[in-house]
Amino acid sequence: MQTTNLEDMATTKNPARFSLSRLLIGKPLATRDLAHQTVNRPIGLAVFASDALSSTAYATEEILFILALAGTAAFGLSMPIAIAIAILLVIVTISYRQTIYAYPNGGGAYIVARDNLGEVAAQVAGAALLTDYILTVAVSISSGVAQIASAFPALNPYRVEVALLVIFIMTVVNLRGVKESGTVFAIPTYFFLGTMFVTLGVGLYQYFTGTLSIVTDVHSVETLVVQPLTIFLILRAFSSGSAALTGIEAISNGITAFKEPRSRNAAVTLQWMSGILITIFLSITFLSHQIQAMPSHTETIISQLGRTIFGDNSIFYLAVVAGTALILLMAANTSYADFPRLAALHAGDGFLPRQLTFRGGRLVFSWGILTLAGLASLLVIVMKASTSALIPLYAIGVFLSFTISQMGMVIRLRKIGRLQPGESVQGLETVMSYDPRWRLKMVISGFGAVCTGIVMLIFAITKFTSGAWFVILLIPILVFAFFRVHHHYKDVAHALSLRDKTYDIASHPVQTVVLVDGVHTGTIELVNFAKSLQHPWHAVHIGVNPEKASKVEALWDEMIGEGELVVVPSPYRQLNMPIRHYVENLLRENPDSYVHVVVGHLAMDSVWKQALHQNSVFIFNLALNGLERVVVTIVPHQVGRHQNGGNVVDRNVLTNEDLRRGEEGER
Amino acid sequence: MQTTNLEDMATTKNPARFSLSRLLIGKPLATRDLAHQTVNRPIGLAVFASDALSSTAYATEEILFILALAGTAAFGLSMPIAIAIAILLVIVTISYRQTIYAYPNGGGAYIVARDNLGEVAAQVAGAALLTDYILTVAVSISSGVAQIASAFPALNPYRVEVALLVIFIMTVVNLRGVKESGTVFAIPTYFFLGTMFVTLGVGLYQYFTGTLSIVTDVHSVETLVVQPLTIFLILRAFSSGSAALTGIEAISNGITAFKEPRSRNAAVTLQWMSGILITIFLSITFLSHQIQAMPSHTETIISQLGRTIFGDNSIFYLAVVAGTALILLMAANTSYADFPRLAALHAGDGFLPRQLTFRGGRLVFSWGILTLAGLASLLVIVMKASTSALIPLYAIGVFLSFTISQMGMVIRLRKIGRLQPGESVQGLETVMSYDPRWRLKMVISGFGAVCTGIVMLIFAITKFTSGAWFVILLIPILVFAFFRVHHHYKDVAHALSLRDKTYDIASHPVQTVVLVDGVHTGTIELVNFAKSLQHPWHAVHIGVNPEKASKVEALWDEMIGEGELVVVPSPYRQLNMPIRHYVENLLRENPDSYVHVVVGHLAMDSVWKQALHQNSVFIFNLALNGLERVVVTIVPHQVGRHQNGGNVVDRNVLTNEDLRRGEEGER
Repeated sequence: MQTTNLEDMATTKNPARFSLSRLLIGKPLATRDLAHQTVNRPIGLAVFASDALSSTAYATEEILFILALAGTAAFGLSMPIAIAIAILLVIVTISYRQTIYAYPNGGGAYIVARDNLGEVAAQVAGAALLTDYILTVAVSISSGVAQIASAFPALNPYRVEVALLVIFIMTVVNLRGVKESGTVFAIPTYFFLGTMFVTLGVGLYQYFTGTLSIVTDVHSVETLVVQPLTIFLILRAFSSGSAALTGIEAISNGITAFKEPRSRNAAVTLQWMSGILITIFLSITFLSHQIQAMPSHTETIISQLGRTIFGDNSIFYLAVVAGTALILLMAANTSYADFPRLAALHAGDGFLPRQLTFRGGRLVFSWGILTLAGLASLLVIVMKASTSALIPLYAIGVFLSFTISQMGMVIRLRKIGRLQPGESVQGLETVMSYDPRWRLKMVISGFGAVCTGIVMLIFAITKFTSGAWFVILLIPILVFAFFRVHHHYKDVAHALSLRDKTYDIASHPVQTVVLVDGVHTGTIELVNFAKSLQHPWHAVHIGVNPEKASKVEALWDEMIGEGELVVVPSPYRQLNMPIRHYVENLLRENPDSYVHVVVGHLAMDSVWKQALHQNSVFIFNLALNGLERVVVTIVPHQVGRHQNGGNVVDRNVLTNEDLRRGEEGER
Repeated sequence: MQTTNLEDMATTKNPARFSLSRLLIGKPLATRDLAHQTVNRPIGLAVFASDALSSTAYATEEILFILALAGTAAFGLSMPIAIAIAILLVIVTISYRQTIYAYPNGGGAYIVARDNLGEVAAQVAGAALLTDYILTVAVSISSGVAQIASAFPALNPYRVEVALLVIFIMTVVNLRGVKESGTVFAIPTYFFLGTMFVTLGVGLYQYFTGTLSIVTDVHSVETLVVQPLTIFLILRAFSSGSAALTGIEAISNGITAFKEPRSRNAAVTLQWMSGILITIFLSITFLSHQIQAMPSHTETIISQLGRTIFGDNSIFYLAVVAGTALILLMAANTSYADFPRLAALHAGDGFLPRQLTFRGGRLVFSWGILTLAGLASLLVIVMKASTSALIPLYAIGVFLSFTISQMGMVIRLRKIGRLQPGESVQGLETVMSYDPRWRLKMVISGFGAVCTGIVMLIFAITKFTSGAWFVILLIPILVFAFFRVHHHYKDVAHALSLRDKTYDIASHPVQTVVLVDGVHTGTIELVNFAKSLQHPWHAVHIGVNPEKASKVEALWDEMIGEGELVVVPSPYRQLNMPIRHYVENLLRENPDSYVHVVVGHLAMDSVWKQALHQNSVFIFNLALNGLERVVVTIVPHQVGRHQNGGNVVDRNVLTNEDLRRGEEGER
């Protein structure tokens, strides 16, 4: 009965308080509101494809930025490079279809690695993915802002500020919690697909009818010293373009969101997504070459394409730029769901601070969202919201997780190969059943792993000096930190566990020590509480100011008249060390007792007023924190809340002498 | 006996701990080390004159910067303006001599105003002076760095960084505490005077012998649009130059530092200081005009003079630049003594946070020093270490305090005029005795007040748009804030006072509530303490996670087996509101009792480890802070300090299942 009563109270009273955070974030949601809905294939495509599809907005451009180092003649290589990337995409898609069927409850790299390769591999995959989610936010928002600034060049000097504003808004929206209503997600994705297909269709029609013009007025990058077109440079361009693959793992993480048969629906959606991605990516690359698009720091390739195909300021031009900017923001928003969820998974296994598993007032993982927003903002500021500067850091993590995940599948399929026909074995996450085609599947996964592994190496080598070194250093450091955290939690769990330990529940004597700063109404409350405890008690005053100490002694005798008052001198005017030494002495004299230190606290009705007082409770807590058998009690004394029936002070009656007497109340 | 014992302990044990702050600041000093020494006239001049004398380093330059707006032809006005400022200086000096004799215990504007004009005037004078002390640091260090950068132009791009470094070093030195050994102060002051007199002497000799050359290679400021030479512009140049008067009030603040007869010694030192100041200021202005010095953002006038008189890179040139930089740093250092002392005076009267009256480990007013350093650094950053940008903010405060102080003297002398011959009256600060020359003295002080008041108005009007508006807004805001602080302290003093209040010292029943997050070794300590108190007790678990709540209930029965456990549901996953509502209910049911809430705290041996745990003590304290009769006790449980005789955990024995069980320990 009491339970129900309290729950009602919490429900009704709680949302009443007004605050800025309440206004921004919304009123709290109850745990039982945590709901789940499933989506069909078209909505699933909209929800999970934005990250992958959005990379077509910058992949071609990043290839051209690298080729430009060897002069514009090298641009002819953009199409062969794009085709190589498309083949890689097909291989990864086929390999990931298998993962989706094998892990119908979600087959992200972290889970597949933990299941088949052990904790270290799982932590490496997780560290790589967490890093890349942060980069997804930074890259997508930087590129999205670049798209908008292409159409509105006046924004160019404020790209960092605009990007930070977008991150801020996205953070607030996600802290409110996005009800994963697929239809809302569908609008920008299908708007992007619509405008993009129209643009590319018209462009190809113009090409075949010979009416496609050439782009003009581009402030392209200037190459001061033309480098020779080496294999190294070509591989570097290839690795830049392979950023197009980022995000295709999203569906394998989110299989449970699909309607049944979910593995099949997810797999079909993955194929559709890859098909669309390849079509758009190849078409953009082909048309960019035909219109002689130039990589530029002030206008994106998409903007150049739209402008050339539809003419400057055409409504279709604005639509394709808007669609591209929208899908990029959607992609960033995907990380706002993925990063906190993966971080919570790590934290639940004890590899990241446990706070990351707490759901905030709106049921979202607030700590994860804030961590992501903070780190992405930092990246945007350091890299000045430049997509090209961020790209060398990006995609290594994704390819590392692709490789680990597929290696996990290889191990799993080897185990399946050892089963007898018809046999099933319960694995850690899933049931493994005999599969006659295990050998073919293992070859596919293995080939995928080798391909993505090679791309990762190409990436690491060709981009090392331009930024990849940072990620290559960061991931092992993160993994090391994850394990340190894990060991800490294990140590604490062991220390706290009652199993195999002897303990007894028993009373001990209690020595009460009342810390008094002066003799005032708060002191009366302290003394009354100490008396009420009905254990031996005495008072202690830390004598920072010897004159004041004698005054306090005199007032104590006059006003309180009971209990002993000990003055502990503090020649260095500190509060912490004298009380610590005093309590240590007491502990030594009373080896079986608790020392119960009672401290007063003047509680003001505003933080500003509170800041005008020395809040010594904090100092005492810190000083006594490390002592066994020492217990600190805070007796708050409410000042200035006028709860004594509007006992308003007449200020004019008080003299400075009153004030000085009042000062004795503190410090 | 116990007292002596403890003092010894504190003295011997305390300085043993090593830390970074100990290394920078030094070991703590005992209160009894607070000593005082007095100085003779030459040392007094060195100690108190640096602020005033150092303003000659930029006063002429600032006049030229303004005149440059009307073209170089206007530079001819620099000498007449300097003479007007010199006359003003003579008037203020004569007026301040009277203050020195009237207030032999220190006659700063704050004390004179409080004594004669009341609290409001005193607070205005104080606010003005505090503002100007901050500006003294920013202006002097910016100018000092500009002198150094004139000799070493490579430093020019890093002036802000160098200035901040100087502030940092000066702050550390002052936090260590400067033993006011006058001899150390004397070296830079007399070095400056020596080099300056040699430079100006040689310069004047060259002028009279016709060998003085003209300055070359100055990157002077470019005037794009030449303004007409209006009265307004001349007054603006005059007010810029009147920054030369800043710092002459220093001696009247520091009279007690002089040997007896201290008023006479201080007055003679003041005259000497003014005489030297006028000589240097007029000579610099005269010679600058002769060598056709140009205001420049990369080379100071002092550097141009030194270079022209002694030749580039001459050792004499470097000496005069070094001397000027040194005296400017000494001037900034003066504010490090004055600001904290004045802030402590305000705080002692209850107009600023009381923390400003606390002496730190090294007996200095640490809070005041840190406040000054922080605000001066902010000014240097915002104004990019430019003396010219800071000057419009500067000197208004000083002239306001000059005016108020002299007005106070007028009121005082009027009161003296009403006395009978031979009569004496005890004032608030000093004894007022009949003085036959009171009328003459009153006229002098009044004339001084009118002059400085007019200069202040000229300053406020001519500099309003270039920065003075800020100070004109700031001072009333500060005064308002001071009185708000004062009223707060008065209210608290009244609320805490036991006078005219009835109170009784009595026992009350105590209801103990033990907050349990889980059942582990820490819980045993909580329960043992609650039992030891020997008051009625029960346990409460905030049911953030319903599944965990039932586990805790089961474990409670199994492992503890006594005391009632109440589960309070928390549908919004909060800790604060449910416990608050629960305790409020308990208070209602037990109107005469204390509710004693006992909370556990897992104390880790490092902040990093601590950060990995939800430190809910803080949340509970905040939630219960505002309730009367509610007392919160923290029972720390030491984890990871291995105090159980090196009970090291074997991590390999623990499974993830252990870990998950361990998790129940928290949240």
